[in-house]
Amino acid sequence: MRGAVIHAPGDVRFETLDDPKILRPTDAIIRTAVTCVCGSDLWPYRGAEPIGDPHPMGHEYVGFVEEVGSEATSLRPGQFVVGSFATSDNTCANCGNGFQSNCLNREFMSTCQAEYVRIPNAQGTLVATDETPGEDLWPGLLAVSDVMGTGWWAADAAEVEPGSTAVVVGDGAVGLCGVIAAKEMGAERIIAMSRHEPRQKLAREFGATDIVTERGEEGVARIKEMTGGIGADSVLECVGTAESMSQALQSARPGGNVGFVGVPHDVAVDGQELFFSHVGLRGGPAPVRRYLPDLIDRVLTGRIDPGKVFDLTLPLAEVAEGYQAMDERRAVKTLLKP
Amino acid sequence: MRGAVIHAPGDVRFETLDDPKILRPTDAIIRTAVTCVCGSDLWPYRGAEPIGDPHPMGHEYVGFVEEVGSEATSLRPGQFVVGSFATSDNTCANCGNGFQSNCLNREFMSTCQAEYVRIPNAQGTLVATDETPGEDLWPGLLAVSDVMGTGWWAADAAEVEPGSTAVVVGDGAVGLCGVIAAKEMGAERIIAMSRHEPRQKLAREFGATDIVTERGEEGVARIKEMTGGIGADSVLECVGTAESMSQALQSARPGGNVGFVGVPHDVAVDGQELFFSHVGLRGGPAPVRRYLPDLIDRVLTGRIDPGKVFDLTLPLAEVAEGYQAMDERRAVKTLLKP
Repeated sequence: MRGAVIHAPGDVRFETLDDPKILRPTDAIIRTAVTCVCGSDLWPYRGAEPIGDPHPMGHEYVGFVEEVGSEATSLRPGQFVVGSFATSDNTCANCGNGFQSNCLNREFMSTCQAEYVRIPNAQGTLVATDETPGEDLWPGLLAVSDVMGTGWWAADAAEVEPGSTAVVVGDGAVGLCGVIAAKEMGAERIIAMSRHEPRQKLAREFGATDIVTERGEEGVARIKEMTGGIGADSVLECVGTAESMSQALQSARPGGNVGFVGVPHDVAVDGQELFFSHVGLRGGPAPVRRYLPDLIDRVLTGRIDPGKVFDLTLPLAEVAEGYQAMDERRAVKTLLKP
Repeated sequence: MRGAVIHAPGDVRFETLDDPKILRPTDAIIRTAVTCVCGSDLWPYRGAEPIGDPHPMGHEYVGFVEEVGSEATSLRPGQFVVGSFATSDNTCANCGNGFQSNCLNREFMSTCQAEYVRIPNAQGTLVATDETPGEDLWPGLLAVSDVMGTGWWAADAAEVEPGSTAVVVGDGAVGLCGVIAAKEMGAERIIAMSRHEPRQKLAREFGATDIVTERGEEGVARIKEMTGGIGADSVLECVGTAESMSQALQSARPGGNVGFVGVPHDVAVDGQELFFSHVGLRGGPAPVRRYLPDLIDRVLTGRIDPGKVFDLTLPLAEVAEGYQAMDERRAVKTLLKP
């Protein structure tokens, strides 16, 4: 089969790879229906994370079950499945507590920009749809496997409630999906922080009621102005830098909540500042598996369409261009078709 | 009148002071029934916080209304009242959100180790009991004005739920009151971390099911052992040092919660560690006013007896000895009688 391999910063190639095989009885092999490039894939692509030896890339996927291990008895070949970027047995204590992305047997997926993918702990990780959804729904379901699940988690961790005010820091695919989530959870006012016109437009389409273009201290001041001087009930931090985290924490009202879902890079939170803010802070890799049944249903019934975050579609063979377009901000998110 | 004044580390004196006066129409003056020394009073006493000019001390109080300003119309002289260490108008947006200790008109009390005290925003700050409670209940009600309210907040911020496992880091008066709170909120297992026998005994009396004497990494390992390897649902951080915060965060299970109520001194939380832990973190000065009606009721009905944290009672005139006994850990908490 063929798939993407990163060799060095800026150097992603489409290469022939060994076909994946069932290694454990709990594995399944899927044939990829569609996959994509994640904002977090840009960290190594931009040289901001070490690469080491050349290795496959990708952790977002929907596909068709091709083969199942002897213990993945609830799955059968031909099923259309949606998974998560983190595998889970869905039976351990952490899974039972709803934190499947902290499963005691978790593995982070990393080979999904390819024609076939091995899924560890397939039965606990994958959710099959009743029938094969139309191709027009595949992008939305693909989004659910990571960015939509992560946007949902951001809103959940930020405890968005009906009638509340939510601020979304970050206008990437996750931030945009965070807008969808805040809207679905009933936020009355959703303030998207963005200075890119196409993303502002999509944010509005997804339910943002206000756009703030200012950043940093100015952005915080603007949010305070818009919220009676006290700040927002919920802030979704969807970037992961020290600046975005500081902006998020300062934008929340006393007793409000920040959900942070961008993997933090060089972020340290001052204990005394957090203390006197009364702000609640929770983040982490999204427990996508917890949300899958609900989010799949919202996509299949047309209630949400997170597939709109894909503004560039390419054949998988052109994966290198998919990275480059996102790196140069010509695309929010690239969908890849094997 | 007379009251306590701190002059330098280790130097607290009982002196003649000006009688407090109504300065604003929202003020009240109370005659102190009982007051006490707080663990946080030891920071300046030990030289860990700057003192500056000599100044009065104390922020915990119950007393009798002596005089009211023209706008404190719901209060009347003679009433027995319980307040909070932080004043609140109880009408601003933050008060409305339940964070009265972040009131837009907040003042931190600081003159309560005295015979009379001026209470700003008295109507929003004080809660009067229907009748004057018996003297045996005064210590419990005094505890409610700070340490019991703070212990309750720690358990609330740590989201203690019926049937859950709670760990309490810190065996001072606040930690001990945290045990009471966790028990009242229905925690099934309450693990108190303490190596002081009299405090262990009181923790057990208050509802602790287990005592852990190890600290730091060893303490964390012990908690993990006791909780199926994953950690506790809720951790109450009642100290405020970098070590205790780290211990608290590591003792919580993925997706669990840490409530931190010790004012943090030199604490920085690593963003990536917090991220991958999935732990929710919230702290701050306790919104005691939110809890006052409920906690007063629990004390008056005898359901809880947080007054037991006072293991030394002195005349107010001997306030210096009250500080010294706590500094030398001869007392958990000193009650002072004017």
